[in-house]
Amino acid sequence: MTATRRYTLIISCPDRSGIIAAVSGFIARHNGWIVEASYHTDLETQRFFMRQEMLANSLPFELDEFITRFSELASKFDMDWRISDSAKKKRVVILVSKQDHCLNDLLHRWRSGELQVGIPCVISNHEDLRGFVEWHGIPFHCVPMQDKTAAFAEITRLFEQSRGDVMVLARFMQILPADLCARYAGRIINIHHSFLPSFAGAKPYHQAYQRGVKLIGATCHYASAELDAGPIIEQDTMRIDHGDTVEDMVRYGRDIEKTVLARGLRYHVEDRVLVCGNKTIVFR
Amino acid sequence: MTATRRYTLIISCPDRSGIIAAVSGFIARHNGWIVEASYHTDLETQRFFMRQEMLANSLPFELDEFITRFSELASKFDMDWRISDSAKKKRVVILVSKQDHCLNDLLHRWRSGELQVGIPCVISNHEDLRGFVEWHGIPFHCVPMQDKTAAFAEITRLFEQSRGDVMVLARFMQILPADLCARYAGRIINIHHSFLPSFAGAKPYHQAYQRGVKLIGATCHYASAELDAGPIIEQDTMRIDHGDTVEDMVRYGRDIEKTVLARGLRYHVEDRVLVCGNKTIVFR
Amino acid sequence: MTATRRYTLIISCPDRSGIIAAVSGFIARHNGWIVEASYHTDLETQRFFMRQEMLANSLPFELDEFITRFSELASKFDMDWRISDSAKKKRVVILVSKQDHCLNDLLHRWRSGELQVGIPCVISNHEDLRGFVEWHGIPFHCVPMQDKTAAFAEITRLFEQSRGDVMVLARFMQILPADLCARYAGRIINIHHSFLPSFAGAKPYHQAYQRGVKLIGATCHYASAELDAGPIIEQDTMRIDHGDTVEDMVRYGRDIEKTVLARGLRYHVEDRVLVCGNKTIVFR
Amino acid sequence: MTATRRYTLIISCPDRSGIIAAVSGFIARHNGWIVEASYHTDLETQRFFMRQEMLANSLPFELDEFITRFSELASKFDMDWRISDSAKKKRVVILVSKQDHCLNDLLHRWRSGELQVGIPCVISNHEDLRGFVEWHGIPFHCVPMQDKTAAFAEITRLFEQSRGDVMVLARFMQILPADLCARYAGRIINIHHSFLPSFAGAKPYHQAYQRGVKLIGATCHYASAELDAGPIIEQDTMRIDHGDTVEDMVRYGRDIEKTVLARGLRYHVEDRVLVCGNKTIVFR
Repeated sequence: MTATRRYTLIISCPDRSGIIAAVSGFIARHNGWIVEASYHTDLETQRFFMRQEMLANSLPFELDEFITRFSELASKFDMDWRISDSAKKKRVVILVSKQDHCLNDLLHRWRSGELQVGIPCVISNHEDLRGFVEWHGIPFHCVPMQDKTAAFAEITRLFEQSRGDVMVLARFMQILPADLCARYAGRIINIHHSFLPSFAGAKPYHQAYQRGVKLIGATCHYASAELDAGPIIEQDTMRIDHGDTVEDMVRYGRDIEKTVLARGLRYHVEDRVLVCGNKTIVFR
Repeated sequence: MTATRRYTLIISCPDRSGIIAAVSGFIARHNGWIVEASYHTDLETQRFFMRQEMLANSLPFELDEFITRFSELASKFDMDWRISDSAKKKRVVILVSKQDHCLNDLLHRWRSGELQVGIPCVISNHEDLRGFVEWHGIPFHCVPMQDKTAAFAEITRLFEQSRGDVMVLARFMQILPADLCARYAGRIINIHHSFLPSFAGAKPYHQAYQRGVKLIGATCHYASAELDAGPIIEQDTMRIDHGDTVEDMVRYGRDIEKTVLARGLRYHVEDRVLVCGNKTIVFR
Repeated sequence: MTATRRYTLIISCPDRSGIIAAVSGFIARHNGWIVEASYHTDLETQRFFMRQEMLANSLPFELDEFITRFSELASKFDMDWRISDSAKKKRVVILVSKQDHCLNDLLHRWRSGELQVGIPCVISNHEDLRGFVEWHGIPFHCVPMQDKTAAFAEITRLFEQSRGDVMVLARFMQILPADLCARYAGRIINIHHSFLPSFAGAKPYHQAYQRGVKLIGATCHYASAELDAGPIIEQDTMRIDHGDTVEDMVRYGRDIEKTVLARGLRYHVEDRVLVCGNKTIVFR
Repeated sequence: MTATRRYTLIISCPDRSGIIAAVSGFIARHNGWIVEASYHTDLETQRFFMRQEMLANSLPFELDEFITRFSELASKFDMDWRISDSAKKKRVVILVSKQDHCLNDLLHRWRSGELQVGIPCVISNHEDLRGFVEWHGIPFHCVPMQDKTAAFAEITRLFEQSRGDVMVLARFMQILPADLCARYAGRIINIHHSFLPSFAGAKPYHQAYQRGVKLIGATCHYASAELDAGPIIEQDTMRIDHGDTVEDMVRYGRDIEKTVLARGLRYHVEDRVLVCGNKTIVFR
């Protein structure tokens, strides 16, 4: 990641020849300097997906003007599209329970400048992590879960008030209501402590132990109405053996969980993840 | 693996203190030289598992005498036990369909001397691989699958006639009858082309493609009555991305399948795998 | 890899804006259908690298005509460029000594159709592998190494006579003369059994054992005048531990060597590898 | 790791038959319950290495008595040996410069109870991390490096005053004087940001970038007089590609560095690492 301001153009449209030429021609006519370009055609839907990252100051006009001018081309190709500006950092609201390894990891990446986002607040159903969060100068909201309806209403209110772009469930350990998942589809990122689709639901390391698998894993995915079944962004696995107890798996697993979540979130905030049905395209 | 002749003693018994001392004391009293020793206690069943590899010529008597003398100690600790002799190679019968990447890999390890086994025959439901197998000087039997009952009876007959120790399903692509799995429990090794328990059954790469996972895998396990649900011996995974088609996965997958099967089979023939319920202990 | 005929256009030129637009515009004007497109700018040399794969039958003319028409555009941007046709398989000459794990692996990929190349001959300094190679219907030439000058002259003659595109040193275990490396720069692929730059030269597993590393590796690279110092195409590593002897490392290492070589060779024959100084760009 | 108090017995001695029997017999006679046992023979030196972990309360006497009684046996076999008590936590002094990813990671493992050690103080040559360290209630000492002799004298004084068992260089970025390394041989753990022996010394990611390797790595090792050449405890690698800049490598590398250091330190404080010449035996 560089300090240079960049625009990132994300496009999906029905596949046909000439799309790359039309888009790159448009950018070239305005002297736009493309620093990264990625393409993909989904064979099942015959849809084309595209990501172009360009230097903001190579263009002779502002983002508004780009949007106006590009719209004509976009409608010609029947494009779904958006453009983002690296100068406008994504706002990430983190939800956490008591386990703080993912939170600790994300906050370190944030305070060291590795993760270029804003964190308007952290929400938890317990008070335990208040001190650590507030030490960072980040507001901490405790929302108890006794009355779930009220709790999720409050979480929604806090997210809206924070003008959150993305909600990260950093081992939140609570099942989100389906309407919340639907409302923020593609904007809620969960880390599940198994290599999905194996071991969805509760206590995945216990399930893994019972089945006697030889590797464990973690999965970063968008939350959807069906539990642990949303589009997968990133996964990883690591080797265990017969001598490892459930407690060992929990301990090893934390290291996979935090790196998988950090990578998935990074891809998301850099506009590298495009959702296609229940799958993702990740332009790394 | 060395050319030096070794005895491998495999024990399981209820856990208590003094087992290691009793066994290693027995071996030491007869001047046995232990070159590898491994232990494990299963916490759920409170059973103790042990593997001792010793130099055959360090002992003052033959295997028969060892067995006689050790039996007394074994019954005192209520042991299930066996001892194997590296001079007596395991006899491996390989079953294969048309896909030959695992067969090719196993036969190369065998002819290069890496895999110290005998291969009395290869059985297939197609003629395609006869030439390649027979080039190695190994008998090839074609058993068509039109009449499954007759076919599996013939396979059983061939296995028995070959005095087979272990049956390897090297991408055999046929579901074995439950009674065959029961008869040879812990002696039939299958390679499944997914990271089990995900994507059991048919066309696992298609299933993986549909789910949009970010890694694919392979699993080597003992066949059991329930399909793809037997004790897992070895697994591995590799990274894919959104650009990979099912055909790409099939191609990448072959490389995992063959190494995972080769490792699993090696552990088995070196008496490194102990079954405990539906799990395995692998003393690598 | 698909059976559909494709043209692959490889370009490198000084970086500037408008290159992608010019090339994709050229292809679009002739209704060319791009199925894969990759770009890279080398920051040190400020050179731009590009690979475009297009469906051959989407273009209204043959390759000759493409070349003629594209030349004008190419000279405008001062491009080094070439275009290849998937219908014209690369001709791969394999050199091998006595260790045959890489040879066995490559020949299987070839006969199963996974590796879409021609193999005009296999050359060895020993007779051992003649039977196995000839079983495949591939000519086998034994070139003894007593007189190295004569031997390498003969190897060059055989390579030329075979109209070889690429020479693969599949554990050939002989140091090539510098002039041969220079003559076929970027066309000789070696597999070295260490994670370079560690443990160049002879007996890398012994070196690794002495140093006490916790992972071993293999490196596929283009041969250059300086031993084991040419541009790296592909590498991989695997975990070992203190219990592993040099012999164990040799055995494990074979599995890495063959997959790393197979991947590197595949990238090469699919025109995915571009050399930039002493480094490679691999458009996977 | 469990809360149950354990004794860990570490032995090395010339190899001969009967060692395991003698040691396990000794423990069994006193009703000691062994929960983990590991062995290794170094083939070059013909030395035998052993680690036995037993439940403290299974023995009828205290550690002093164990030591007295075991000494007789130990001298019979010419053993180097020690025994540690899990109730007596190792004291870890952390040295750090400005980069805090390893520090942040270690402090989280410590405050979450995953890493069962004491941290008497953190020492740095900069003031930057004082606030973060002191938030944990851990004393922070800033020792500027202008006068290196004085600085290392002060570091030694602080380490001694803290009764430190092990000194961790968590990206300290300073070369330790040879006499300090000698004085605390096997007690200073460094994390180097390359896959040693490749890229020792300064700016390893720049070296890796220049060489064009396809994976980067990190190495946790004991510091010795020769820079980055001490016994390796743990290593790992990860894949990069031609598109990754030095800055990308630095960023990815942080994730390997912190997990490799955390694993290496954990092995050390659990008495799992035995040094043998310039290599380590790690009984995981």
